[in-house]
Amino acid sequence: MIKKYHFGKPYNTEAVILPVPLATDTLPYFEVSAEKGLSFKLKLEKSDAVYGLGEAMRGINKRGYIYNSFCSDDPNHTEATRSLYGAHNFIVIEMGEKVFGAFFDTPSTLTFDVCYTAFDTLRITCENENMAVYIIDGDSIYDIVKEFRNAIGRSYIPPMWAFGYTQSRWSYIDKADVRRIAKGYRDLGIPLDAIYLDIDYMERYKDFTVNEENFGNLPEFVEEMKADGIRLVPIIDAGVKIEEGYDVYEEGIRNNYFCSDKDNKPFKACVWPGMTHFPDFLNPQVRTWFGAKYKILTDMGIEGFWNDMNEPAIFFSQNSVDETHRKIKKMADEEFSVDKFNELKFYIGSRQNCNEDYSAFYHNTPEGRFCHKDVHNLYGYNMTRSAGEALDKIEPSKRHLLFSRASYIGMHRYGGIWTGDNHSWWSHILNEIKVLPSLNMCGFLYVGADLGGFGCDTSRDLLLRWLSLGIFTPLMRNHAAAGTREQECFCFENPEDFKHIIDLRYRLIPYLYSEFMKASLENEMMFKPLAFEFPKDEVARHTEDQLLIGNELMIAPVYTQNALGRYVYLPEDMTAVRMTGGELSYTEMHKGHHFVEIAENEVVFFIRAGKAIPLCKAAKCVEDLDLDTIELVGTGKEYLLYTDDGFSKDYENPANFKTLKK
Amino acid sequence: MIKKYHFGKPYNTEAVILPVPLATDTLPYFEVSAEKGLSFKLKLEKSDAVYGLGEAMRGINKRGYIYNSFCSDDPNHTEATRSLYGAHNFIVIEMGEKVFGAFFDTPSTLTFDVCYTAFDTLRITCENENMAVYIIDGDSIYDIVKEFRNAIGRSYIPPMWAFGYTQSRWSYIDKADVRRIAKGYRDLGIPLDAIYLDIDYMERYKDFTVNEENFGNLPEFVEEMKADGIRLVPIIDAGVKIEEGYDVYEEGIRNNYFCSDKDNKPFKACVWPGMTHFPDFLNPQVRTWFGAKYKILTDMGIEGFWNDMNEPAIFFSQNSVDETHRKIKKMADEEFSVDKFNELKFYIGSRQNCNEDYSAFYHNTPEGRFCHKDVHNLYGYNMTRSAGEALDKIEPSKRHLLFSRASYIGMHRYGGIWTGDNHSWWSHILNEIKVLPSLNMCGFLYVGADLGGFGCDTSRDLLLRWLSLGIFTPLMRNHAAAGTREQECFCFENPEDFKHIIDLRYRLIPYLYSEFMKASLENEMMFKPLAFEFPKDEVARHTEDQLLIGNELMIAPVYTQNALGRYVYLPEDMTAVRMTGGELSYTEMHKGHHFVEIAENEVVFFIRAGKAIPLCKAAKCVEDLDLDTIELVGTGKEYLLYTDDGFSKDYENPANFKTLKK
Repeated sequence: MIKKYHFGKPYNTEAVILPVPLATDTLPYFEVSAEKGLSFKLKLEKSDAVYGLGEAMRGINKRGYIYNSFCSDDPNHTEATRSLYGAHNFIVIEMGEKVFGAFFDTPSTLTFDVCYTAFDTLRITCENENMAVYIIDGDSIYDIVKEFRNAIGRSYIPPMWAFGYTQSRWSYIDKADVRRIAKGYRDLGIPLDAIYLDIDYMERYKDFTVNEENFGNLPEFVEEMKADGIRLVPIIDAGVKIEEGYDVYEEGIRNNYFCSDKDNKPFKACVWPGMTHFPDFLNPQVRTWFGAKYKILTDMGIEGFWNDMNEPAIFFSQNSVDETHRKIKKMADEEFSVDKFNELKFYIGSRQNCNEDYSAFYHNTPEGRFCHKDVHNLYGYNMTRSAGEALDKIEPSKRHLLFSRASYIGMHRYGGIWTGDNHSWWSHILNEIKVLPSLNMCGFLYVGADLGGFGCDTSRDLLLRWLSLGIFTPLMRNHAAAGTREQECFCFENPEDFKHIIDLRYRLIPYLYSEFMKASLENEMMFKPLAFEFPKDEVARHTEDQLLIGNELMIAPVYTQNALGRYVYLPEDMTAVRMTGGELSYTEMHKGHHFVEIAENEVVFFIRAGKAIPLCKAAKCVEDLDLDTIELVGTGKEYLLYTDDGFSKDYENPANFKTLKK
Repeated sequence: MIKKYHFGKPYNTEAVILPVPLATDTLPYFEVSAEKGLSFKLKLEKSDAVYGLGEAMRGINKRGYIYNSFCSDDPNHTEATRSLYGAHNFIVIEMGEKVFGAFFDTPSTLTFDVCYTAFDTLRITCENENMAVYIIDGDSIYDIVKEFRNAIGRSYIPPMWAFGYTQSRWSYIDKADVRRIAKGYRDLGIPLDAIYLDIDYMERYKDFTVNEENFGNLPEFVEEMKADGIRLVPIIDAGVKIEEGYDVYEEGIRNNYFCSDKDNKPFKACVWPGMTHFPDFLNPQVRTWFGAKYKILTDMGIEGFWNDMNEPAIFFSQNSVDETHRKIKKMADEEFSVDKFNELKFYIGSRQNCNEDYSAFYHNTPEGRFCHKDVHNLYGYNMTRSAGEALDKIEPSKRHLLFSRASYIGMHRYGGIWTGDNHSWWSHILNEIKVLPSLNMCGFLYVGADLGGFGCDTSRDLLLRWLSLGIFTPLMRNHAAAGTREQECFCFENPEDFKHIIDLRYRLIPYLYSEFMKASLENEMMFKPLAFEFPKDEVARHTEDQLLIGNELMIAPVYTQNALGRYVYLPEDMTAVRMTGGELSYTEMHKGHHFVEIAENEVVFFIRAGKAIPLCKAAKCVEDLDLDTIELVGTGKEYLLYTDDGFSKDYENPANFKTLKK
């Protein structure tokens, strides 16, 4: 049961697409204050839990910290980070036996103080007094999530090849570099389905251009790679370079398609290309225009994209440049003191993604002209909507790979997300475990983290352990930042260890793809906390480093360095599946606590009692998988397999479902 | 057996004070290269371990990362942090059955690549070709540590009151503020032994001055607090403010006591006081001069100090200010482009603690004039040596509290350390667990982290859990940065939970003080990894989130939020001691794996089989502890208690040891 409540005059974010009539009663559960903006307060008992918030730091149970919903490009993801790239305002609150969901639908910044300031008080505050709040009642967390997901619409479904292992780096600089990567994998027999092209494939970072010197005749190169089972996935950034003669820039100027300042002049912000304008993605006409540009690349054979820098990230604005120049002109002729150095240091150091800039440009939306800060969280969402809607028109019968850095609920219908610029830190493996179910709650099913870590230098053991989690995530991408150590699997000693782990991914694809499709078609979660499945089991409720995947599997990845293994809690009897040297072995284990030894070149996962999963033979790419090699493993007798051609949109054809029996 | 090897002409750091003759054979174990500087290489098997490095990130076993010995003021302590505040170049290598220690004694930067670049290779490199290397052979890690510690001299011993709980903040601003803190604790009956005075007690951050407006008549205030069992512990920073009329500045200038630039002019660096000069602590005359200044404060009744900013931290130098001014003068009249903004942003943003500055000043040492960068790691060490040696002269019969941020091995004879500017992150609880034994190996026994976390906002549960570790560390200080949430225990709900935990600390002081004194007098470790005590037990060898304390205790602190408890590995049968609501209960537990529920207001620790520990009644401060209330708990029958007056230096008096029997 979902009910809608309005405060003020809410902006229609189009997150919820199911028509929900306005409730006539007052908002239940929360004590509401509308003194300054809006505040929603709820007292909780010590044993109550708050789940959700999608992409956020800290636990699966969000108690004990403050989170700000404000799409942010801040790569230092520590425990103190309050904002990541997404703004996902859906929570489920478990109060004793009672459980309900709440979605706070506003494009403005929202703060969730989850029993942090006061240890028994959840308080949600927003400076903006306009908001729609949805309350979802149900018998279980699953019921509530399903009801919410039904209201926000079916999650994006990628092509099947996007379930393969993929390799990225900022940046593979030319065709030879890309060929080197492909060869590195193919020579060792490590499966690979895609290589990403980061910003350097473009001509000076201009969207929808290709650097002809390094990537000349791209269509031919796309074909060459595809013949080897490898797709190329280019990046598209939000900012459009200001450059006379560049068609995207000129069309945008001609049609007033860019975000503008208070004087209606296009707002100037420096990002990778230098000074840029931001397409006004909140304007449907702009979405249609910008989205159509993706055809430039699909015409070259490209079948997937990642949208980046769309919080939007701002290195600094023209306003900041001008103000800095004013300051230094004034300072140049004066005595230059410590205080003036500090003033300059502070000013220049605080220009990146600053509030002044987010307050200085405007959008022309269907609901009128809005200052960016009041609709900030919708920007990345609508950039990806622009691409998703366009790709549906460009090649209507075909699925494309599409994912984004910034997001808001609603964007899940158009693309997936990767969890942004993480680091080669062991703690970020654990973070990924914790964020997966929260993202699923908010509709984001096609998700994954940069395996091995984006920032900082990885290590062989870190990459092995992270891949051992990554083989279970829909998006499985190894990605690293410029200046960091090379982290392609073939760069490390004993690459057969990597092959065995990635081979296992491909063996699992029939299962993972089936469970992904079931979750998408039925508005269910693919990654589930033990707390959701075993709500009466106090240990399960507190286990945040294990996850259930689909209806049959449980994972318990190792996320500490130099570990012999780890503790695993089995909430019921399960079959442990151990991969050693590419071979699988099976052990029946009893409900309870276990210490499980897991070497860094091994993978251990668990099949639930009475369940079976399909495993096929590995192949070099998804298209080469032979489903005739499927065997069922586990103590169950049958499994409902989902299969299709991997490209078309005939998802709901009953013929796609097939019960496999032992 | 300790042997010394020289490469080039090593600088005498005075880390090792035992006369060790120069070995006549070649350096064993390592493959040495002297092509560019020095390189020491050693192949390791997968199961071999490398311990040590004192204050460093990552594991107790240091395998899998790179560490730079370079005393650094960098508060963002992540897994990728390669340098912290101390430079502790002692490692113990466990190669199969063989174990040996190595101390790389150089004041220059040293890099330990511990099986990171190549997964089977330890490589230690140094740009400086001059180094003393000590190799220590022995039958066990304990033997080797003891041999090394014997060579570097007895660890610093603080007064007994320094084992009490202490409260700090940057900053308590005046007497009323300090009284408020004292009253906050006393009113709730939470024990407290000291309050720290951070930089604002000084007159505009000038060392050895007192802000008369806020702390007028300090001696009287010191007495007032002491009457309540609370000592005041002021900070001393490394940089001396440049200010005409300020005696420390003027004396330093007059006598050439400051570090100088290449033209022999005092080097100017901006720190808290504004532009300062750095006392040249590597010059013994300067140490004597600066150390004598502490008498200004001891004459006011002060009995303890913390030395800070002594890496030395540099916000920016006068050179950087001048260069910035040159740049902006040039830029002021030109067109101010994106490139110029970026140039200025990069330049100004890279001035803090930059290599250019560390290369731009010099020390006049007994061994000649040295560029700072070549002796960098000795600076904080010699600042604290200056204080320690002086306090021994000022009040020869009395122990003082003294600890430092920056350090090098050798400084352990003069003071303790706190582990610098950590954060209110759960992972920093675990970091503290891991660093304690490594510090002990290097001679640092009086150690502790800022409980609750220095940077960022703490939470009630984080503070409770961190205190539950902190009650076992010699230095037990709650400290927080300016601008963060108040984190004194009385600021949170249900303060009795804090009282119960801190009361337990006081009950444990007879044990902790005894074990600390035994470790110091016998050159032993107080905090021991399970790996050292149970080297044949593979699980124990890999358990890095539990520690043995002294000869009787084991701890297994909770370091995750919202946890029900944690897994604990018992390498032998033990007695679990559980504190709930101030009451203790005891459970016998068997060797093996256990899941132990521990609520956030509980403490659980373990007494080894056949051992007993003394517990006394709690008191409001250490001096009020009544040792007649001691009871022995655990399955053992006796305990060797160390007691003394807590102030004098009559450590080795046999009368200080007393066998307690049940």
